[in-house]
Amino acid sequence: MLKHLPQSIRLVEVGPRDGLQNEKTIINLEDKFNFIKNLAAAGLKEIEASSFVRAEKIPQMQDSAQLFDRLIAEPSLKNTHLISLVPNLIGMKEALVHGVKDIAVFTSTSNSFNKKNINSTIDESLLKIEEVLSVAKTQHIRTRGYISTVFGCPYEGKTSLTELKRIALRLKELGVYEISLGDTIGIANPKQVQEVIEFLSVDFPLDFFSMHFHDTRGMAIANVLTSLELGIGSFDSSAGGLGGCPYAVGASGNVATEDLVYLFESMGIKTGVDLDKLIYASELILAKLGNISLSKSHTAYVAAKK
Amino acid sequence: MLKHLPQSIRLVEVGPRDGLQNEKTIINLEDKFNFIKNLAAAGLKEIEASSFVRAEKIPQMQDSAQLFDRLIAEPSLKNTHLISLVPNLIGMKEALVHGVKDIAVFTSTSNSFNKKNINSTIDESLLKIEEVLSVAKTQHIRTRGYISTVFGCPYEGKTSLTELKRIALRLKELGVYEISLGDTIGIANPKQVQEVIEFLSVDFPLDFFSMHFHDTRGMAIANVLTSLELGIGSFDSSAGGLGGCPYAVGASGNVATEDLVYLFESMGIKTGVDLDKLIYASELILAKLGNISLSKSHTAYVAAKK
Repeated sequence: MLKHLPQSIRLVEVGPRDGLQNEKTIINLEDKFNFIKNLAAAGLKEIEASSFVRAEKIPQMQDSAQLFDRLIAEPSLKNTHLISLVPNLIGMKEALVHGVKDIAVFTSTSNSFNKKNINSTIDESLLKIEEVLSVAKTQHIRTRGYISTVFGCPYEGKTSLTELKRIALRLKELGVYEISLGDTIGIANPKQVQEVIEFLSVDFPLDFFSMHFHDTRGMAIANVLTSLELGIGSFDSSAGGLGGCPYAVGASGNVATEDLVYLFESMGIKTGVDLDKLIYASELILAKLGNISLSKSHTAYVAAKK
Repeated sequence: MLKHLPQSIRLVEVGPRDGLQNEKTIINLEDKFNFIKNLAAAGLKEIEASSFVRAEKIPQMQDSAQLFDRLIAEPSLKNTHLISLVPNLIGMKEALVHGVKDIAVFTSTSNSFNKKNINSTIDESLLKIEEVLSVAKTQHIRTRGYISTVFGCPYEGKTSLTELKRIALRLKELGVYEISLGDTIGIANPKQVQEVIEFLSVDFPLDFFSMHFHDTRGMAIANVLTSLELGIGSFDSSAGGLGGCPYAVGASGNVATEDLVYLFESMGIKTGVDLDKLIYASELILAKLGNISLSKSHTAYVAAKK
């Protein structure tokens, strides 16, 4: 039942990092820069732009330093939060050199997933995050936390709500302003979404969370709707549905920003995003990748214009 | 907020008629027969199998008479409701000759849509339905009503709720056991779904309605979820997401049965459908059509099995 819908919600665009990272075709610096500029021009105010990781690990992110030098110098992006994923102290130090002011740190509710993904147990990852955040705090860097596999892990199946709470409390203690709860393999259903959110609402205000759904099984929009009804006001999404998770078999597709914009705006909830301009941004990068859009709203919109 | 979820819901499979009718590749009698048999074997108890219309109008349905002769003779289908769409008295009489026991009649909340689709105004279509039902009643034929363009018309935009109520009351009076409310162009959003259902709930019990959503803009599963929360217990869907609406530009894709089965079963709501067997049924017909599945649940399921 839809009651007390908010007047507006926040969208955190993850296409340029989470999306592109999982695409095989390497996008050059200029095209990445333009993609981010176009997304900001469409009205997206928080954009995960890149990550400071070892180039040999994630080739798509090898030019993050040069990209940030360009982004920081771009006047039209002055009011955009450009977020960089930072896995450790080395990444943090490099990010600072290149003018990064918003970072994201990463862990998961699954030891197996963390081991495969970042070669750390949960507790080891929390120690790395502590190191990163001790620097971030002194430099007034805004830090977002990611928790992956909240709704299920490709290696361990269901993960523990108690562990989720412990990790979330620790991240809060360390100073993150928000935690993004990831349905990494797109396995969540609305009932489970309700269970997780109601469980966390005992210890946290709901505006401490953003929901990060994958549309692997076509359930993302329903999961977003349930989150919205429960009081969540922030959602991660990827323009054109770019990306997925390379470590999770069968997992493809962050929920598309276009589909979220359509959902919210059609219900009178403001996203601040101009769908025309967003589709322009997506079309350009999809052409570079040789991909078609994974967003049905996008496809229907383009068909209607013809 | 998910409260009072039902233990089970009904699925009305429309792939063999609404789905196939909108596919260009003509499927032969044997393949249609097997498709329907496979759907029933997967647990679907109500299947829209065909329509008795003029062959030159809908070539895909030209062998409905022979198809029904086969279906009626098939022992494994004895307990399956095999529904035929019947546009007028001529179709009704032919359907009776071939052993049809379940029919569906059709209208829309839009005069323009009805004119283009069945060359009748709303009131003319209600007169035809009256003729059909006067025969159906005497022959103890179970009749389902369709109302299209409930959430918007490709020619008229938003359609009238008052008109919807008038048509629904008339269909009820004429003796239909259920009305399927169609989002013909896939334009509905959850808020609008709530408005329509709450509006109708004043004059009708909610078990009088089945929701028929199209996934044109990726909103179908969220619309189904909202309907479920409001107390709707029956949904139309199409195996593999077959079909759409040939009269509505840009409209493609009945919501896929696989996605509904995944949604409901993942929340512990019984559909009676075996997803393995359903996917088997879809794969065979998709191969004949040369199509890929439009169901993300289907795609993820197949990927996970590899």
